[in-house]
Amino acid sequence: MTAKEVLAIMTKGDQFSKWLGLEIDAIETGYCKLHYVVRKDMLNGFENIHGGILFSAADSAFAFACNSHGIITVALDVSITFTRPVKEGEVLSVEAMEVHLGNKTSVYDIRTTNAEGKIVALFKGTAYRTGKEIM
Amino acid sequence: MTAKEVLAIMTKGDQFSKWLGLEIDAIETGYCKLHYVVRKDMLNGFENIHGGILFSAADSAFAFACNSHGIITVALDVSITFTRPVKEGEVLSVEAMEVHLGNKTSVYDIRTTNAEGKIVALFKGTAYRTGKEIM
Amino acid sequence: MTAKEVLAIMTKGDQFSKWLGLEIDAIETGYCKLHYVVRKDMLNGFENIHGGILFSAADSAFAFACNSHGIITVALDVSITFTRPVKEGEVLSVEAMEVHLGNKTSVYDIRTTNAEGKIVALFKGTAYRTGKEIM
Amino acid sequence: MTAKEVLAIMTKGDQFSKWLGLEIDAIETGYCKLHYVVRKDMLNGFENIHGGILFSAADSAFAFACNSHGIITVALDVSITFTRPVKEGEVLSVEAMEVHLGNKTSVYDIRTTNAEGKIVALFKGTAYRTGKEIM
Repeated sequence: MTAKEVLAIMTKGDQFSKWLGLEIDAIETGYCKLHYVVRKDMLNGFENIHGGILFSAADSAFAFACNSHGIITVALDVSITFTRPVKEGEVLSVEAMEVHLGNKTSVYDIRTTNAEGKIVALFKGTAYRTGKEIM
Repeated sequence: MTAKEVLAIMTKGDQFSKWLGLEIDAIETGYCKLHYVVRKDMLNGFENIHGGILFSAADSAFAFACNSHGIITVALDVSITFTRPVKEGEVLSVEAMEVHLGNKTSVYDIRTTNAEGKIVALFKGTAYRTGKEIM
Repeated sequence: MTAKEVLAIMTKGDQFSKWLGLEIDAIETGYCKLHYVVRKDMLNGFENIHGGILFSAADSAFAFACNSHGIITVALDVSITFTRPVKEGEVLSVEAMEVHLGNKTSVYDIRTTNAEGKIVALFKGTAYRTGKEIM
Repeated sequence: MTAKEVLAIMTKGDQFSKWLGLEIDAIETGYCKLHYVVRKDMLNGFENIHGGILFSAADSAFAFACNSHGIITVALDVSITFTRPVKEGEVLSVEAMEVHLGNKTSVYDIRTTNAEGKIVALFKGTAYRTGKEIM
């Protein structure tokens, strides 16, 4: 199964990624790039993007990238660092890159950048590879 | 300003916490407890809760707890560990406890448990205390 | 094999834990408590304890606790937060508590406190359980 | 003060980095590269490198890189992922790269690789910039 075929299966029923409005720009084995627009209903009480949105979009990119090998792979541990505020209307780009692929685990580096190319969130995720094929 | 007054200000405009359907059970200085129900639009492509939902609800509890001192406080770093799958319809409880309160930073331990009391996600968050009062 | 027997096997060849001068105060299934004294050769260039020492002692407690079930278990991901400076001569206590025990992974909370009982470092560790028995 | 001058001040009294046998290969503003040899007294009870050594050497590279701007900067949060075992005698390279430089905080990506160039540990560190000049 190709990375594109896996993505089609994964996104079909992914209700929350749809809500986030994620637009996939590229998908390859071990790699995913996407973007989204920050809406009013994604803000927190300080009129900034809710940290959960930054995490969620990066987590989707992580899931699409780490499952692209055709093996069901689940997130185990994530560390996220927030570096800059983001406001309503901004367009954010998310790029997930594989930095380690082992038998049981894989590790991804996911960077979210604003329109100026400045990093707004850094996400490092470790996933567990179940060994079961995606069908 | 009391922890309850801060919470009222924060939740008023917090669009995303509203979307998540968070119900606050307790708020005190350095502490917050809340719960929510997992809806269909919170699922990922494997019919499991999206990791971003688990993060987001915990992140809201973190924000409510760390701002409860009346000082604007922003999330800097979070580490989250996912321990069990969660399905549609489950009720999840989130408890945020302060483990360190310094001049510039504070650290919180946030645990999300299912109806059986089993941990489904462990969240450790470090926040930066800006020094500006919430008004 | 009991937790004590596992500890005896692990500490026998653990050269670095010996160098750290770790003194085990308690070992049980899923639990370990130890202490050590901060020496001059554990300092960094600012006459503070080197962050690596705080990590290392907590990592040993983590290893002793997560292997106590008699299954070879290896550290996968750790998040550590440094909360207070520590000087030469201080006695630090480290307590490792199990917060999740799954088939494939386990999660531990390890707290390092100074003589006043104040937290100086918070360590959350996820380990992979290989399934192989310790012999 | 240049990055090299800061490094000279920092390493002068850094007892633990000396014990680790760290050899600095490059130092620039926001960047540090070093290497070291894994000795017998750096092993754990399974004849593998102790996780604390991998953390410590990366933490030193982090400290040298984040202080290179001439401002006293302290580690706040670190997430480390262990990806491969390492044995006695191996030569490990550590490279610290700046990924964010803000007013109050900075974030570094530190990778440790073995002689084959394979990653053995991934370290993401957030530091707090005190604003005080190094003298």
